[in-house]
Amino acid sequence: MLEFWFEFASTYSYPAAMRIRAECERAGVQLAWRPFLLGPVFARMGWDDSPFNLYPAKGAYMWRDLERVCEDAGLEWRKPSAFPRSGLLAARVATVAEGEPWIGDFVASIYRANFIDDRDISSPEVVADCLGSFVSEPSDFLRRASEADTKARLRARTDEALELGIFGAPTFVVAGELYWGNDRLEQAVRHAARLAA
Amino acid sequence: MLEFWFEFASTYSYPAAMRIRAECERAGVQLAWRPFLLGPVFARMGWDDSPFNLYPAKGAYMWRDLERVCEDAGLEWRKPSAFPRSGLLAARVATVAEGEPWIGDFVASIYRANFIDDRDISSPEVVADCLGSFVSEPSDFLRRASEADTKARLRARTDEALELGIFGAPTFVVAGELYWGNDRLEQAVRHAARLAA
Repeated sequence: MLEFWFEFASTYSYPAAMRIRAECERAGVQLAWRPFLLGPVFARMGWDDSPFNLYPAKGAYMWRDLERVCEDAGLEWRKPSAFPRSGLLAARVATVAEGEPWIGDFVASIYRANFIDDRDISSPEVVADCLGSFVSEPSDFLRRASEADTKARLRARTDEALELGIFGAPTFVVAGELYWGNDRLEQAVRHAARLAA
Repeated sequence: MLEFWFEFASTYSYPAAMRIRAECERAGVQLAWRPFLLGPVFARMGWDDSPFNLYPAKGAYMWRDLERVCEDAGLEWRKPSAFPRSGLLAARVATVAEGEPWIGDFVASIYRANFIDDRDISSPEVVADCLGSFVSEPSDFLRRASEADTKARLRARTDEALELGIFGAPTFVVAGELYWGNDRLEQAVRHAARLAA
């Protein structure tokens, strides 16, 4: 099994989220979705913003690199007009929807909204639009997303990320072994496939 | 032409340095050695130590990831007992030796000393040992390494790195385009080969 730890605000989580289902299916690897929040992880490192904003040279490189990464992977890409956008609401919805058959499509549709359509994914309207393709009552999921139990589960997930040693996103976890970054997806899948064989 | 910007203290520069000559030769790409210092680059980011020491989770991951990277590349690897070791003296010698036919072998031998043999590359004896395989008078190179002109050239190189937008090592530069990290070597070489064709 491969755990996909992702944050909706994270730029490199976008190509990973778009590629991961096909990679896992091809290798016969079971995929577990692990939405979490980078905010508390970065706070532990002393950061109150994305490192790509705090360190301008690193940020400038990331935008160019990501453009090349998406081009190589055949993925659409547009630099969002605001960065980072809060992925909190979408992460809470993903927490509610973790076991739904359409979770992967929902995740992809939030990334599409942020990184292709340049929409504000922190807005309930945008999240409801994304949900609308999969459920008849998006408002039901938005309501459940704001329940105390959901908030607590997402906080617990983020604590678990810190305990696992996660310091960024995307991170793939296979039997306790960490693989950080979209670049490591194939290696993580190979490891998971070996263990499943 | 591909410029290889590297720092002897940098862990991920090690597999890049060991692989780069073969990758460039295979693709018919001319390789330019660009030793520089990460210290002033990190200082600009507010860091007085390696980020792998400042951010322990990131550091723990790096040591494990590098082990896997080296295994996949068929490279020997031993975690050094001290990190980071100052690469200043070795970088000054590399600055003097930039145009020598044995520069690539010298660079590889310093990385071998640091990351395979766990030797202190900041020591003149170790650097002289590394030089000894290529020149009859290592002390001559050590003397030239400490001349004001050499120091100034290495400082200028480091300033140039900052101007190029370099924020870490290794970085490959092809016609002003930056590729950061050992993972990007193949992509940088492909770009250089396309331009040369």
